[in-house]
Amino acid sequence: MAPGRRPSPAGLAVGLNTGMDSTSRLPLAGLQVVECASYVAGPTGGLTLAQLGAEVVRIDPVGGGNDYRRWPLAPNGESHYWSSLNKGKRSVAIDLRSPEGQDLVVALITAPGPDRGLLIDNVVGRSWLAHDALAARRPDLIHLRVQGHPDGRPAVDYTVNASVGVPQITGPEGSNVPVNHVLPAWDLITGVSVAAGLLAALHDRDRTGQGAFIELALADVALAGVSNLGWLSEAEQRGGDRPRHGNHLYGSFASDFGLRDGRRVMVVALTVGQWKALQTATGTTKVFEALEAAFGADLRDEEERYRHRETIAAILRPWFAGRDFDQAAGELDRARVLWGPYQGMAEVAAAHRAGAHPVLADLELGDASPGRPPAGSITARSPLRWNGGYGEPGQTPVLGRETDQVLAEVLGLSPAELAGLHDRGVI
Amino acid sequence: MAPGRRPSPAGLAVGLNTGMDSTSRLPLAGLQVVECASYVAGPTGGLTLAQLGAEVVRIDPVGGGNDYRRWPLAPNGESHYWSSLNKGKRSVAIDLRSPEGQDLVVALITAPGPDRGLLIDNVVGRSWLAHDALAARRPDLIHLRVQGHPDGRPAVDYTVNASVGVPQITGPEGSNVPVNHVLPAWDLITGVSVAAGLLAALHDRDRTGQGAFIELALADVALAGVSNLGWLSEAEQRGGDRPRHGNHLYGSFASDFGLRDGRRVMVVALTVGQWKALQTATGTTKVFEALEAAFGADLRDEEERYRHRETIAAILRPWFAGRDFDQAAGELDRARVLWGPYQGMAEVAAAHRAGAHPVLADLELGDASPGRPPAGSITARSPLRWNGGYGEPGQTPVLGRETDQVLAEVLGLSPAELAGLHDRGVI
Repeated sequence: MAPGRRPSPAGLAVGLNTGMDSTSRLPLAGLQVVECASYVAGPTGGLTLAQLGAEVVRIDPVGGGNDYRRWPLAPNGESHYWSSLNKGKRSVAIDLRSPEGQDLVVALITAPGPDRGLLIDNVVGRSWLAHDALAARRPDLIHLRVQGHPDGRPAVDYTVNASVGVPQITGPEGSNVPVNHVLPAWDLITGVSVAAGLLAALHDRDRTGQGAFIELALADVALAGVSNLGWLSEAEQRGGDRPRHGNHLYGSFASDFGLRDGRRVMVVALTVGQWKALQTATGTTKVFEALEAAFGADLRDEEERYRHRETIAAILRPWFAGRDFDQAAGELDRARVLWGPYQGMAEVAAAHRAGAHPVLADLELGDASPGRPPAGSITARSPLRWNGGYGEPGQTPVLGRETDQVLAEVLGLSPAELAGLHDRGVI
Repeated sequence: MAPGRRPSPAGLAVGLNTGMDSTSRLPLAGLQVVECASYVAGPTGGLTLAQLGAEVVRIDPVGGGNDYRRWPLAPNGESHYWSSLNKGKRSVAIDLRSPEGQDLVVALITAPGPDRGLLIDNVVGRSWLAHDALAARRPDLIHLRVQGHPDGRPAVDYTVNASVGVPQITGPEGSNVPVNHVLPAWDLITGVSVAAGLLAALHDRDRTGQGAFIELALADVALAGVSNLGWLSEAEQRGGDRPRHGNHLYGSFASDFGLRDGRRVMVVALTVGQWKALQTATGTTKVFEALEAAFGADLRDEEERYRHRETIAAILRPWFAGRDFDQAAGELDRARVLWGPYQGMAEVAAAHRAGAHPVLADLELGDASPGRPPAGSITARSPLRWNGGYGEPGQTPVLGRETDQVLAEVLGLSPAELAGLHDRGVI
């Protein structure tokens, strides 16, 4: 039962295979953060910090929280989702309903040291984790709490996205039913905001010694997102939602086109240079000159391109419909058109297997269920490329694997004390 | 032509009207960041830092960059988009094609001081802004460069979203055409990642004195996003994309329902508690007990709820169809169901006018076009609520307004030198 040595942080070190010196330090090395959060937002905050070198201690209830078996699952029963979002963290499992377990969590959060006292949580209504109670133990605590609504009521990505109006402007022209986004975009934005907020507070604490209680509501992140794009102002001016415009880009020209072989591409002409390139590639310069003369329109102006988007798309469509993917790709690239293919996720996974995407990496998932072999998971390194190289993704999390180590290291618990906690079912 | 005093940072101070002490300092007060970036991602990074107290100097070409008149526009011609994304920053306009202008930009970026030497850009292929050239002038420069693809090729949100496969799993069941997201989610995630990356590098520089060159590609952010959710692993296992499931939530139960008055709500049952609440509110507990017995299914398991989503939705639909919004809202809230209304953006704007959303605020936009009056814009404060209060959103940006001030303050240019630059059209 003696706590093992803390494992080497090899899983977090910058890899040799990315062209970097393997001795490179990561920018947050030495920092220790506690995370008591589930699902996407809070864990993404911890993941962001862990991939930059922080030691993140994630606390889960014994047996795992609500997100521990969230889909998608590997064939052996492990969650791709939980494993990817929590990789590179140390996992501590504690009975959060027992007073003794709660005391341990509070002690971990408020442990002394200039590189400690940093907490991410998404807890509502538990008095033992109230900010005031924690700050009484460590006044310079930096505590970032993720919420649904700013008043503490619950909300999730799918409800806030509906409430800020995005599904009402998504989908085909003429449709009048909401189309939900599948990507939990607000969760991901909130998650990265957690990392930014915590680091800003740390910058301040390093200078002034003062801690902070920072609350971040998913609903506020969504309101900020749509208002900062000018969308609320526009709807107010218009007196209603802008019309759906399918796969067109609002206020400029971009659209999707089908190719002869059934593949599709997304083509963008935001700038004058991109618009000229698109005409050059498709041999339509004279057509659009004549059209501009006939319409009295200047299509170098992106607003005019938006107004005439259906006409422009109709003129361009035969060029795409007459070409297979490779031919279209070559001609678009030669003319420096801004475009991208539509791809299915299985194609992206296959491209990863072929080594196309250095930001992606593989996790080996343990054998969760008796008789089932280990499985693999495609995961990501930090997209923040430091001095020319990607870091390592971080090692596969295993629920409770570092419980004893962390309690011994941070709280100085003895082997006998740890054994007692195990016997009482607290850890 | 004498440079004015630096304006008071009132636009960035924490407001009296949010319950905070107006003398509260912001966590990044004193920090100076230069931003040479356009559209959403880079400017969102600068905005995030500015709203936390940093002084962000945004550099634009004289007359404005490609994003200066991006839609949506106010009635007076000002861009809601540009104004909101760049509020709270100091605006410097310089002729970036002239060697003299380029020298000024490099001097601003590499000006000495521990709280300076922080650059956000999204520039590709300009040798005078190459990292090596800048680092030769200031070796501890922290330089975060936003890119499209990691090899420097251009990409925008709409192309990377298509390329990672999100439009192929969005939209109604049975549909086989891609449905683009309208929200530039990857841009926003990238933007907040810029802030997190810069602050992580600053934490490191404060300890070691070393700068960093950090590259962040939109395409990598998107690959990381979908892989960290487990979606690439799942598609590889399945050998293709998961089927579209309309407004259902993948792997658990959530769906949209129409009400008697034509409004719609999004209802979520991720956890056992939420599922019980939904049955209680709708009086369907016995129905689902009987269904579980008939199907041999345990609907407390979210995977089972997902498999039976169409049946569950069909059983619940009449309850919603028989109620107007207020009645349904009251009954759902009393049973503590997790739900949210679908709202149009004009409704969200109206709620803001009624004071519903403290994260939102108003910008007064200047009179951009002769004869047109000032206009208003709905914008946001930082969603990061610091010690109980929201900060101010930041003052409306005016292109080039702080050019003389910044050049005088940071580079020590005299009134005569500034006059010469104006005469030569450099600023």
